[in-house]
Amino acid sequence: MLQAFDDSYFMKKALEEAQRAYERDEIPVGAVIVHQQNIIGRAHNLTELLNDVTAHAEMQAITAAANYLGGKYLRDCTMYVTLEPCQMCAGALYWSQLSKLVIAAPDKNRGFKAMGAKLHPKTKVIEGLMEEEAARLLKSFFIEKRNLN
Amino acid sequence: MLQAFDDSYFMKKALEEAQRAYERDEIPVGAVIVHQQNIIGRAHNLTELLNDVTAHAEMQAITAAANYLGGKYLRDCTMYVTLEPCQMCAGALYWSQLSKLVIAAPDKNRGFKAMGAKLHPKTKVIEGLMEEEAARLLKSFFIEKRNLN
Repeated sequence: MLQAFDDSYFMKKALEEAQRAYERDEIPVGAVIVHQQNIIGRAHNLTELLNDVTAHAEMQAITAAANYLGGKYLRDCTMYVTLEPCQMCAGALYWSQLSKLVIAAPDKNRGFKAMGAKLHPKTKVIEGLMEEEAARLLKSFFIEKRNLN
Repeated sequence: MLQAFDDSYFMKKALEEAQRAYERDEIPVGAVIVHQQNIIGRAHNLTELLNDVTAHAEMQAITAAANYLGGKYLRDCTMYVTLEPCQMCAGALYWSQLSKLVIAAPDKNRGFKAMGAKLHPKTKVIEGLMEEEAARLLKSFFIEKRNLN
């Protein structure tokens, strides 16, 4: 199949979502879910605005994508996410049986790998795509926060 | 403080939620969240009905409780849940900094402990309260499912 869009194209879309989170004073993380070259879920972190620890970008994107597909499994889908998912999001991705996960920046403290959580064995993982852009946005956010306090 | 209701009282409420899931043909798991002797979140598993892997009882109860409290932390709250939380739900509870978690039945395969995920270090855990009742409901559900297929 001709691939009109590549991984970088979709990661840019996830970074646009992260930028939207930044502008709303949320930790800047964005995610998109792609099925047959179409974005079927897109979201950014909204934990502060919604006062809800479950409102991570990935969780909202999973719900949106499953709603679009009319089924709870994301077996032929790829998620592009700007920061390594936490245990909660990895756990949701585990249940969804996601095919492929593309991560920009690692989260060495609270990422699912450091915490010990697991993705589904069928999920293929690619790490470090546009890591610098994602990490730069996170760094700016935390520097700004520190300077305001 | 006089405790009008004890752990068993609230676990019974969680079991009532699990029974509601059973009646809707969902894997029977229920959860309630209690703050100062009041139930501020109650939910049952709705993954099939909503086609959404994130619709576990615990996740919905966390969102409801945070909404009630107007803040995302559940620091002075107890969750009563009829089955050991999975990685996703343990991950959400980690972020919420829940004070106390009371679990009825263990989940030896997909529970957060078997999968390697972690609760918040401040969360006190009590296991096995009304385990038989919770396990019996789950067993009935799966026997019924097997006989129908």
